[in-house]
Order: sequence, then C-alpha cells, then structure tokens
Amino acid sequence: MLVYQGKTKDLHKDSEGNYYFQFKDDVTGKDGVFDPGENQVGATMEGSGKSNVIVSTFFFELLKEKGIPTHFVSSDAENSTMQIKPATVFGEGLEVICRFKAVGSFVRRYGMYVESGTDLDSYVEFTLKDDDRQDPLITQDALEQLGILKDGEYNRLKELTKDISEILKEALAEKDLELYDIKLEFGRLDGSDEIVLIDEVSGGNMRVYHQGEYIDPLELVNYFN
Amino acid sequence: MLVYQGKTKDLHKDSEGNYYFQFKDDVTGKDGVFDPGENQVGATMEGSGKSNVIVSTFFFELLKEKGIPTHFVSSDAENSTMQIKPATVFGEGLEVICRFKAVGSFVRRYGMYVESGTDLDSYVEFTLKDDDRQDPLITQDALEQLGILKDGEYNRLKELTKDISEILKEALAEKDLELYDIKLEFGRLDGSDEIVLIDEVSGGNMRVYHQGEYIDPLELVNYFN
Repeated sequence: MLVYQGKTKDLHKDSEGNYYFQFKDDVTGKDGVFDPGENQVGATMEGSGKSNVIVSTFFFELLKEKGIPTHFVSSDAENSTMQIKPATVFGEGLEVICRFKAVGSFVRRYGMYVESGTDLDSYVEFTLKDDDRQDPLITQDALEQLGILKDGEYNRLKELTKDISEILKEALAEKDLELYDIKLEFGRLDGSDEIVLIDEVSGGNMRVYHQGEYIDPLELVNYFN
Repeated sequence: MLVYQGKTKDLHKDSEGNYYFQFKDDVTGKDGVFDPGENQVGATMEGSGKSNVIVSTFFFELLKEKGIPTHFVSSDAENSTMQIKPATVFGEGLEVICRFKAVGSFVRRYGMYVESGTDLDSYVEFTLKDDDRQDPLITQDALEQLGILKDGEYNRLKELTKDISEILKEALAEKDLELYDIKLEFGRLDGSDEIVLIDEVSGGNMRVYHQGEYIDPLELVNYFN
C-alpha cells in the first residue's frame, strides 16, 4: 500500500504492517539537469535509486554500530528498497545542517563576515522544509514559539547532528573524501518520543570533495563498491 | 567634525570631544515614497528629524529611569541633535528584534506555521545589518562562530531586548497604542565592554497600531506632544 509519494522515493506499508521506502531513479533538478539543491524532480538517472540505497545502508549500519538511533531496519539494494521503523517528522519537516566548511547558503547569508571555504567548527543550523519559502532558516526560540520543538529537543537534535556528522566525516576521510556539509532529518519514533535519524543518508544530503574536487552526489556510490 | 554620515542622521564630534547625532529630514524609502523597511534614503519629510529626536528622547529618558543602560546623554529637539556616548557596534552592525505579533518578515518566513497577527511571547531574533543581503537572520551559534558576539553576549542582548521592549510596550499602551514589533541596536561602550542600547528609538524602529489601525512612523510623534 502506498502511504506517501515523495520526490525521489515512495513510502509503502506491506500486508504485515512493515514500512519500507521504494527508491526511484528520479532526482531533484530543473529542466533535466540534476541539482541536489532543487526542491523539484527534474531529471531521471538510471540506477540512482539503487545507488542511494547502497550509500544509505553503509551509513545507517555504521551509525547503528556507533549507537546512534535511526529508523533503519534493513535494505535490499537489488530492488531499491529499505525497511524502516515509522516515525513522525517535526512540524511539516525540519532539516538540521552541520557545516565543516563555509559554502552555499551560509556564504550567501553571511558573506560580509566569511569567505567561501573557511573552516567552521561543526556548526549546526535548522531550516524548515518549505519549498514555497525556500526552506527558511529558523532559530531555537522560533522552533519552540511555533510549537515545532518541545523543551530539550533542540539541544538533543543539535548534539545528535554533531555526533552523526563527525562519524560520517571520519568514515568519508578514510576514503580520502572530505565532508564540507550535510543535511539530516529526524523524527519521533511512532509509539514513543524517541528521536531518531530518518529519511536517507546519501550523496544528495551532503557536499563531498576528493582532493579538492567536488564529487557529484550520484558518483559518491563509486567509493562504496 | 563629521565622524560618520548616515542615511537619516550624521554623527559629529565637537571641539570638546563630545559626540552627537544631527538628525536629518531624510527618510528611508523608494522613489519618493516613505518606507521604514527600505534600506536607502528615498524621500525628504519636513520636520522628521525633529520628530525622531522628540520620540527618541521620550523613550531614552524612560529607559534611564528604569535602569536600562543606553548611549543617550541629552538632546535638543529645536536643533534636531542628540548627544551620545561613543560606542562600537557588534561586527558591522547587528539588529535585535522583539515581536509581540507575527507580522512582516516573520510571516514571510514561517507562514506555513503561523497566521499574520498571531500573538508571540516577546520573541527575540537577530539580523545582520547588510543591505546587499537583505539583513539576513542569524542564530546564536553563527554569531559566536563568526566572532560577532563573545560568550554570554547573546543572552545579555536577548534579555536587554525583552526588558526594553516590555517597557516600551507598556508606555505605548498608556497612550492607547499597541506595539507589534520593534528593532533595536546595541553597542559596547568605548573604553569598557558594557553593552548599551544605541542609535535612535523612534517610529521607524517599530510597528505601532492604534485601535487596530497602523500608525505611520512619522505620525507617532503626535502622541508625544
């Protein structure tokens, strides 16, 4: 049963009540050109669904080893599926970004104070998922004022994001890849208030460089085979 | 001696070393139409300099009575001047906003979660003064990461902003005026690290309503005569 149709993957529930993602070969972009920053589906890339399952599985299994709670249960790369535990997002969806280098929207906002490429100390910020408003930045006070986060959740999300990002940064460094920034999504596990990492963890969520060269998100899988 | 030429006032230093603002009748706006949200001078309004001195003096004197540190020394409405203690802004200038009602940029950013006119609980947020980047919103972590604020200063500014805004809200309520939001600027007093309220406190810094009707910033002075 189709529960939710997403841009790059659909959420299904099977007859036994298990939830799983069906990854698609659709990628975000515009006019047929892939762009992970775009909020709409604009292109199809053969094999991208499978690639995202392979990369996500690697990271979710690594995070499990390190004791980080996630919604991941298991995956099947051949069929581009991933079984997950159901969770509810914060508000209409919240993204938590960790930055090790000042690039992208950070420099567009704060270019008066920082040059592109400057090191940042695992700086964390939150944005709302809202295509119409270009995913606006939001502060702790606004998240609590609008009832999107409860007391204590901001700091829990910030700490989890730092921990996860450090783990991924180290794992990428072992492959001679440098993590510049990463965008994570969290939810509360259904039936409890436990906060877990949700969605996928793949090239489209992060900026990765190899010896100073930007790695196309869809090429990231080549380092995991 | 002219120290700094601003959009709506100039900063002078006299022969005895005193600093004072010379308010001008120039107002921010575009194509001859007054707009307090605009970042450029676009119109001239006869008497606006004097009006801003009268309103600012009222508020600065009230704040002094309540024990709030400000850069205000004295003023001369006839000559549109205000003597101040010299202070240095944070970074290239930082604005601290307190909101009692959700309007303006707050709704443009968070309209998915809040309707225009909703009550807010003296919500405080910080923006950078940067005309080219439309005064971007900035979080506590970014302010500290970029070296704009030192440890403890964020909370001090937030508390001062809440206290000042509550005092002004009450004073306006006594005139049957309702404060929706207000934008303040702070600096460190030269020769010490004491944080004080700087700039002016006039109609252009706040949204004020009278019995549900928006009060033009230049009309606010009529309630102070």
